[in-house]
Order: sequence, then C-alpha cells, then structure tokens
Amino acid sequence: MKTVLLTGFEPFDGENVNPSWEAVRRLDGQEIAGARIAARQLPCVFGAALEELRRHLDALSPVLAIAVGQAGGRPDITVERVAINVDDARIADNAGQQPIDQAIAADGPAAYFSTLPIKAIVSGLRENGIPASVSQTAGTFVCNHVMYGLLHRAGPRAGFIHIPYLPEQAARHPGQPSMRLEDCVEALRLAVEIALTQREDAKIAGGATH
Amino acid sequence: MKTVLLTGFEPFDGENVNPSWEAVRRLDGQEIAGARIAARQLPCVFGAALEELRRHLDALSPVLAIAVGQAGGRPDITVERVAINVDDARIADNAGQQPIDQAIAADGPAAYFSTLPIKAIVSGLRENGIPASVSQTAGTFVCNHVMYGLLHRAGPRAGFIHIPYLPEQAARHPGQPSMRLEDCVEALRLAVEIALTQREDAKIAGGATH
Amino acid sequence: MKTVLLTGFEPFDGENVNPSWEAVRRLDGQEIAGARIAARQLPCVFGAALEELRRHLDALSPVLAIAVGQAGGRPDITVERVAINVDDARIADNAGQQPIDQAIAADGPAAYFSTLPIKAIVSGLRENGIPASVSQTAGTFVCNHVMYGLLHRAGPRAGFIHIPYLPEQAARHPGQPSMRLEDCVEALRLAVEIALTQREDAKIAGGATH
Amino acid sequence: MKTVLLTGFEPFDGENVNPSWEAVRRLDGQEIAGARIAARQLPCVFGAALEELRRHLDALSPVLAIAVGQAGGRPDITVERVAINVDDARIADNAGQQPIDQAIAADGPAAYFSTLPIKAIVSGLRENGIPASVSQTAGTFVCNHVMYGLLHRAGPRAGFIHIPYLPEQAARHPGQPSMRLEDCVEALRLAVEIALTQREDAKIAGGATH
Repeated sequence: MKTVLLTGFEPFDGENVNPSWEAVRRLDGQEIAGARIAARQLPCVFGAALEELRRHLDALSPVLAIAVGQAGGRPDITVERVAINVDDARIADNAGQQPIDQAIAADGPAAYFSTLPIKAIVSGLRENGIPASVSQTAGTFVCNHVMYGLLHRAGPRAGFIHIPYLPEQAARHPGQPSMRLEDCVEALRLAVEIALTQREDAKIAGGATH
Repeated sequence: MKTVLLTGFEPFDGENVNPSWEAVRRLDGQEIAGARIAARQLPCVFGAALEELRRHLDALSPVLAIAVGQAGGRPDITVERVAINVDDARIADNAGQQPIDQAIAADGPAAYFSTLPIKAIVSGLRENGIPASVSQTAGTFVCNHVMYGLLHRAGPRAGFIHIPYLPEQAARHPGQPSMRLEDCVEALRLAVEIALTQREDAKIAGGATH
Repeated sequence: MKTVLLTGFEPFDGENVNPSWEAVRRLDGQEIAGARIAARQLPCVFGAALEELRRHLDALSPVLAIAVGQAGGRPDITVERVAINVDDARIADNAGQQPIDQAIAADGPAAYFSTLPIKAIVSGLRENGIPASVSQTAGTFVCNHVMYGLLHRAGPRAGFIHIPYLPEQAARHPGQPSMRLEDCVEALRLAVEIALTQREDAKIAGGATH
Repeated sequence: MKTVLLTGFEPFDGENVNPSWEAVRRLDGQEIAGARIAARQLPCVFGAALEELRRHLDALSPVLAIAVGQAGGRPDITVERVAINVDDARIADNAGQQPIDQAIAADGPAAYFSTLPIKAIVSGLRENGIPASVSQTAGTFVCNHVMYGLLHRAGPRAGFIHIPYLPEQAARHPGQPSMRLEDCVEALRLAVEIALTQREDAKIAGGATH
C-alpha cells in the first residue's frame, strides 16, 4: 500500500503541546484514499528537523508528504503557497539557535511553490465547514525551513499546512483564536484525500493584494 | 425544581444559523446544579425581543437568566460586564428597524452591571481549556438591548454572554475566528453552574486600559 | 472670555511620552470659537487624577471640559460614548495601585454618557480627513476613571477622547498603528469647536453590533 | 549625476488617491546622497505596469530602483523581502484583468529576494521615529508583479516598499490605520539614502514565526 507522510512538530515557544503533532498522530496508521498515513514528529530545531525529515522520506518513500505546523494567532487552517530560502528567527529554536538571514540551501533557488493542490484543499475544507485559506508566507522560522527543505529534495507531491492554537492554548493567551483538535484532524484528512485524488488544482482566486 | 432561563437569538445579518440559539437549545431540559434549563429563542428585533423575554421571565420565574448572543469576529467566549441605555444600530434588525441613539428605557439609568460572577466564569472556563474573557461592551445593537432590558427588570441574577461564529460560519467569512458548538455548549453549562454555586465573584483583574 | 479645559495624562506603562499631553499642551492659551483653552496635565493615578481634575474645574469654571488619553493599539481618534462606575486595572497605575472591581463613586450610577456631541465630532473629523470613530468603551483604567469622575460632578458639557500612539512610540512597538501629533492636535481643535458651536448631536449611526 | 528611480502607482480599488504616487512624486528631482530622484507613475495593471517600468529603467539607467505601493490595512512602512512568480488577483486590476495562478515570467525562478538592505532600512526608519518592519509577502497582486518584474531584469539594486493608507483614506475606512504623507516621504528619503550608502545589510532579526 502507498504511504503518505505527515509530520508535526514538538512544542516550542514555551507551549507544552503542539497542535500539529497532536493532529497528525491521530491519523497515524489510517487509510485514506488507498494510502496509509505515517505520522512522524520533527524537532523544532533548524537543521535537525530537516535531517529527521530526510530520514523519514528515505525510509518511507511516500507518494505524498505534508508537513504541518502551529501558527499561533491565525484563526483558520492555512495552506502555504510558497517556502523561501532563508532562516530568520525572531525567537530561538528548541536548541537555542537563532539564525539571521541565512540560506537554507546555499545552492538552492530563492523559493519553491507547494506542489499540493492548495486551492482545491482550501475549497474542499470550506465546503466541509472548516475555515481555511491560502497563505502567502510560511514565515522564516522552522516551519518555512522544513517546507523549503521538503520541496528542495526531488520527491513526492509535497507542501505545508499551518493550524491554529488549540482552545486549551488560547485559554492561556487571551484574545488569540483557536480551533478544536477534531477539526484540525478532519482538515488534514481532507487535505490528504484531495491531494491524492485531484491532480489539477482548482482555478479559484486565493491571492492577497499585499 | 428551580429554573434557569437561557435565551439565544434567531439568525441575523444574512446568516442562516445563530450559534447562540444552537448552543442554548442543546441545554434545554438539562439539569445543572439542581436547576432545570429552559432554553428560549428571541427574535433579533428591537422591542419584540424584550417583550418575548419578559413573557418568558413571567412564565418561568427563573432563579438565573443568561441571554446569549453571537459576536462574529470575537475569538473567545466573552462575558459582558455592562449594558448601556442606548440603541444605536449600525445595521437593520430583522424587522428593518435601525434606531439611532434612542434610550431603551426612557426612565432607566445609563447602565446596569451584570449580576453574574463574571470573573469567576471567565476563570472557570479558562481552567477548563475554553478561551474566555471579560468584555467591557456588549455593543449597541439587539444584544445590548436585551441585556439592558433583562437587568432593568427587578429579577433574578442575570447577565449576557457572547459566543463566536461557528466554524461553518467562519468558513464563509475568511479570516474570522470561530469556536466549535460543543465548546460553546460546555462554556454555557459551566457558566450556569458557576453562577448557581458561587455567590461572590472572584477578585481577578479583567479590565482593559481602554 | 470663556474657558475650555483640556486635560492630558503623564506617560504610563513604560512610555516616555503621552500623546494626550503633547497634543493638549499645544492648544494651551489658544482661542477657539470665542473661548480660551486651558491645558492641564493629570497624573496617571487612580484618585489623584480626579483630585487634580476637580481642582482645575474649580479654578477655571470652564464651559466645556474634554479629557484626553492615550489608547495604544487603536488606529484612530475615538470619541468615548460612556464611562462606567468601576476601576479594574490590568496593569498598575503610576503610584503602583491596581484596583479590581472597585466603584469610582460609591453612591454613583453605573454609568454616565458623554455630554459632547460625539457623532458630530466624529463626522466633523472625518470630513476634515482625520480618521475617527465612536468608542463604546473607555476601558476600566485611569482614562475611564477620569471620564466618570468628570461627568459625576455637575458641571459643564464634558467627555473623553482617546488618541493613538505617536509614530515615535509605534516605531518601538512593531505592528501598532499611530497618528501624527499635528493630526491629533487638529482633531482636538475641531472637537472643541464643534462642541462649542453645535448644541444638538448629529443623527448618524455610530454603534457596534457587539 | 546618478539617478534613482522611484515608482508609485495610480489609484486602484475605488480609491481616488494612491499614497505611493503622492509620496514618490514629492521626491522627484531631489538630490539624495549624490543621486537625483526620478519619480514615475505606473498603472495598476498587470503587464502594462511592467512595460512602463522597463521603459523607465531603459531611459534612466538608475543605480537604484525602488517601487512603492499602497498596503491598505497595514499600520507601518513595510519593506518587502521577497517577490514570488505568480499573479493571483483577489480583485480586478484597473484594466479589468483578474489572473489566477499565472506565472509572471514563464521561465523565471519561483522568487527573487530584494537586493535592498532591508534590515538596515527598517532599523534606520525606526531610529528616526517612523514605524517600519520587514514584510515576508508582497501579496500576489500588481505590487508583487512589479517587484518580481523589477528583480527579474538584471539591473540595479532594487526592491519594493509598501506604505499605509493616508489619513484621508482611513477617514473613509473606519478602523483602518494610516500614516501621514510627510512621514511616508521621509521614510522613502531615508530608504534611498540607506540603500545608496550601505552596501552590507544589518544583521538584525526581522523574521516571522509564520
């Protein structure tokens, strides 16, 4: 049976939970559209996260790989359009590293576009009552780092999805939006299904004026 | 058995659902801390909403009354501190009325404070992993109108709680935060329990600098 | 000649400048619509601010009094509609006090409405190209405290106006909006002129749904 | 004397003014750090904007080129880090075109990084009391289109800066932040000066976690 790799991160920035890992591990071993999900956790560490990711890609040879991360402050599921070749850390990673304006791949292009059908995923999620949108930036921290590294390697259809804080996290960050874990899990399940079954992306506007 | 009145609103502003009614009707008939919940729907109409409310208060003689409304755009459960004696409608109500700067009760005071233990409720919700905060304004539309009218009438312990859009609503309003119905229902259940069992409010800061 | 009292606050919350004082002191001594402006600084201290304010009201017997404060994070000039009878401090004031849920006037009503023509002021500012809106809450800190105390005392037409950070402050708080001092000064000049010359407020919607 | 090209856009999206053009035209003909400013207006039209831009680059052979655009809703001067090779229009441009997911240059790379010293500019602006930050996305509308096209062509040091609404625009869009034209002009003057005099960028964090 074909394999789909889903990665989530360990907690960072003082949190004791990372919704990305909580969500993907609930899909571990499940079958979606004829493929088996393999969920793996990545450290929130520049460099080490990509080494782990490559190890899993080598071991699993997945037909689809989606990395998932926490986007505290965003209200909905955001499907990333593009990863850029730069690490610029506003806060330290879990190993204390805080790179500024360093290339992820010295010989790599400035950016890679997601090869997921990002518009079809956003559209499919909304139709299923899950708030979602296209994001034009995955930031410049470990999430973007992993998305860039994933796409830099010749490999399967791949991309990155950000999910909001869980309600229990937002309960400690007054004013921040959140999403229930069940909805995040269902969103990722739908995203995998759409990515496995829809070759062409939908022609739907998902841009931003700035 | 004692009765607790919970009211929710019919949909307004082009929505086909109002989370406040969806949440309170799921608690209808349930027993919380020795009291029975009676859930009633109010029209989103200045004047008529208060007439309905008074009819329910007369019929039920509740020991506690909490009116609940939708606050599209807010990310968490907001427990209102105060209702002010003015109707000032940015949009028309469901009967097409759009009052500007009209007193709700010609002879009434400028405002009433909620008689719910608002800090204890916010604190209790957060402890249970539900994002919540005190709100210093219930607006000037039908929600504030109902809260003011509820407190203007000598009656039981009473107040108002705003809840966010449901995910299915936010899926049609990109960028808006939302909360799952189950969490809203649990938040209201906890609020009723705390209001029935805690006489004194908690001494916890819940203010705003502006 | 008639006198108009404008008050601004000393800096608080770690700032080294308070735009409210910077703005009002630039109008000190000026003549607007036949009245002379007297600008006075208030301490950002519960209790002491009101004592100072009362001393100035006694000394000057103004025909109009507008208290002005800083609202860091708001993007425009906000004309406050109402002050509520509660101190609830999220941060300590400049004397280290942090009251929670204390009445400002033990025997006072729950709230006072501004007696300024708030809609006419907002409308007049916008016509002059200055972003402005009605605010339904002045918070629960020293600004609301002063607004309530000002209106609690039988006196002249009175109210409160919040102004944004100055650009130099926002330059130290990335992501926060700001307004140039010149625009704040002009906004206050217009507000005084409108309050002195327009008895009836404008019938324009300025409400909020929540 | 060396030439610096500054471009601004014509109004779009129903506005009757575009702050980017208002700002750059006030610098037209001025001398900054030994170079002469040439300000040119671009149409807010996919394709045509780039044709105009190339004509100006050919005619002027500038040593530095900065394209400037309006970012309604942003509170500060944002110096763009990267342009991506895609047009995805949420609204129609001034010629009625609304491309979805079309490459700007069929044979171009996924993205180009600004060659301006973006951190040094942000830092210099803040030191001069002007709110500024690095932006990780220039959107997918005509601004990003022009930035990408500008960097796609082998040429001078170049990049893109977004500026907020003017106060007069925000006065018609309640709740939106704004910046005075004088501050925008001074910000661009400083940006040109820094870009002409500082070869190396500053090593200052300017990233985003997402």
